[in-house]
Amino acid sequence: MKIRFCIPIYLGLMSLTACKPPAPVAASHPDRIAQVSVINALMVGRHDGVMPIPELLRHGDFGLGTLDHLDGELTILDGKAYQVRGDGVVAEVGPDRSTPFAVITPFGADGDFPCPEVAGLADLDARLSEALPQKNLFIAIRVDGRFASITLRSVRRQEPPYQPLAEVAKGQSVWTHEDIAGTLVGIRCPAWVVGLNVPGYHWHFLSDDRKVGGHVLDLRLHAGRVRFDLCRDWLVMLDDSAGSNAADIGQDLSRDLHKVESSRGGPSEQGR
Amino acid sequence: MKIRFCIPIYLGLMSLTACKPPAPVAASHPDRIAQVSVINALMVGRHDGVMPIPELLRHGDFGLGTLDHLDGELTILDGKAYQVRGDGVVAEVGPDRSTPFAVITPFGADGDFPCPEVAGLADLDARLSEALPQKNLFIAIRVDGRFASITLRSVRRQEPPYQPLAEVAKGQSVWTHEDIAGTLVGIRCPAWVVGLNVPGYHWHFLSDDRKVGGHVLDLRLHAGRVRFDLCRDWLVMLDDSAGSNAADIGQDLSRDLHKVESSRGGPSEQGR
Repeated sequence: MKIRFCIPIYLGLMSLTACKPPAPVAASHPDRIAQVSVINALMVGRHDGVMPIPELLRHGDFGLGTLDHLDGELTILDGKAYQVRGDGVVAEVGPDRSTPFAVITPFGADGDFPCPEVAGLADLDARLSEALPQKNLFIAIRVDGRFASITLRSVRRQEPPYQPLAEVAKGQSVWTHEDIAGTLVGIRCPAWVVGLNVPGYHWHFLSDDRKVGGHVLDLRLHAGRVRFDLCRDWLVMLDDSAGSNAADIGQDLSRDLHKVESSRGGPSEQGR
Repeated sequence: MKIRFCIPIYLGLMSLTACKPPAPVAASHPDRIAQVSVINALMVGRHDGVMPIPELLRHGDFGLGTLDHLDGELTILDGKAYQVRGDGVVAEVGPDRSTPFAVITPFGADGDFPCPEVAGLADLDARLSEALPQKNLFIAIRVDGRFASITLRSVRRQEPPYQPLAEVAKGQSVWTHEDIAGTLVGIRCPAWVVGLNVPGYHWHFLSDDRKVGGHVLDLRLHAGRVRFDLCRDWLVMLDDSAGSNAADIGQDLSRDLHKVESSRGGPSEQGR
């Protein structure tokens, strides 16, 4: 009797859900940060996409990473995925694209505070480390503000056979913009994620008009608002290629990573 | 019209689910391995339970770890959680207990093969590494067999203030059993989980009659059957205390961990 009662309900539900896209997994895990692959896989040259962007967006609405073929910087803000191409053009990412490495969370602020004027990226990081002492948790950090200056970089689309990221980054493009309003999309990882993600702060930027963006190398901030989201669950999604022995992603590439993350050593240094 | 049609179905579903315990999260993630906290937290003496056992069991039916107060070895097999106490007694774990560190997955074999006779634990590990070359994935490994000999250990319940695990392990109990049938519950982690989990193989044992068990220090195996489950998603569930600065879980404790995992240096070496 009970079973006969259940079946129509179950079938009714099935028919209701059948035509919809898969539900976001993020909704049931507000404090989870998810990542596609590990940073060392990107470092050693695994630049093919391993997760479609629509699948990535099921895991959150706020994050950063890169695109298949290392085709620029990926920033996810308010549920939309933006590509900052190697030539600096910002565009929304189509559903046909995929990512070899990305970090994403459903952003829900656990708190917020005004961001004072800061004279540089290191200054910003230091002030946030004082305000957010939870050094063993992952934290998504959003800073909306007016920037006196911001220095950004992106990288150009690569073709196989892929080079290590440290090689590709030598050919990065770097731009400095002045007096610009926008949002910093930041992920802070515990120091112990070495090899798996970027220890410490990792910042991408998008201007309010969505015309300027990239990986942040430096900044000066007039004033802004910090919102932060503490993440207690960390999900690492490994792809099948991670199972192969093609490249050793267990090696210590910290020094190369630091160079890739913070070096301004690109050939071009120009305003756009 | 559509909305009015939906509401009774939704309410019907609500009433059906309201009285049930929370659904296992494992069911929708067959290839996910989940862990509670990180091994370095256990190493530095965080031995209070941070996840109730019933909540842990929502994440799978196969795994290993320890209990609150470091109260023995925890083994999860076929959906049941067993405690091997410091005095060697094996008991099912009650719902009131919790864990400070555990690894668990819903076991679904991706393949199986006969396990040849092996002369020691290192021999078993070497043969499995040949058979399972996916060194960058997590693998749950179940070996059912007849053991010529197996050397097991457990640790005694601790009280605060807790000592580092390396100190506690000096007082471990060690037993060797001969000619015994049972199951090895194994988790193999990639080498790059240093500080977060146990790199390489981590084995617990339960006898067929569920009267003998523990953390495996050595073994000789007549013959057995290996079943393995490749895990592509790795979920690390951090607790609030991980956010505090009370202890530095980022330090390199690899040497201590190796000693804790493999040392026979207990004061008692006896058959039971």
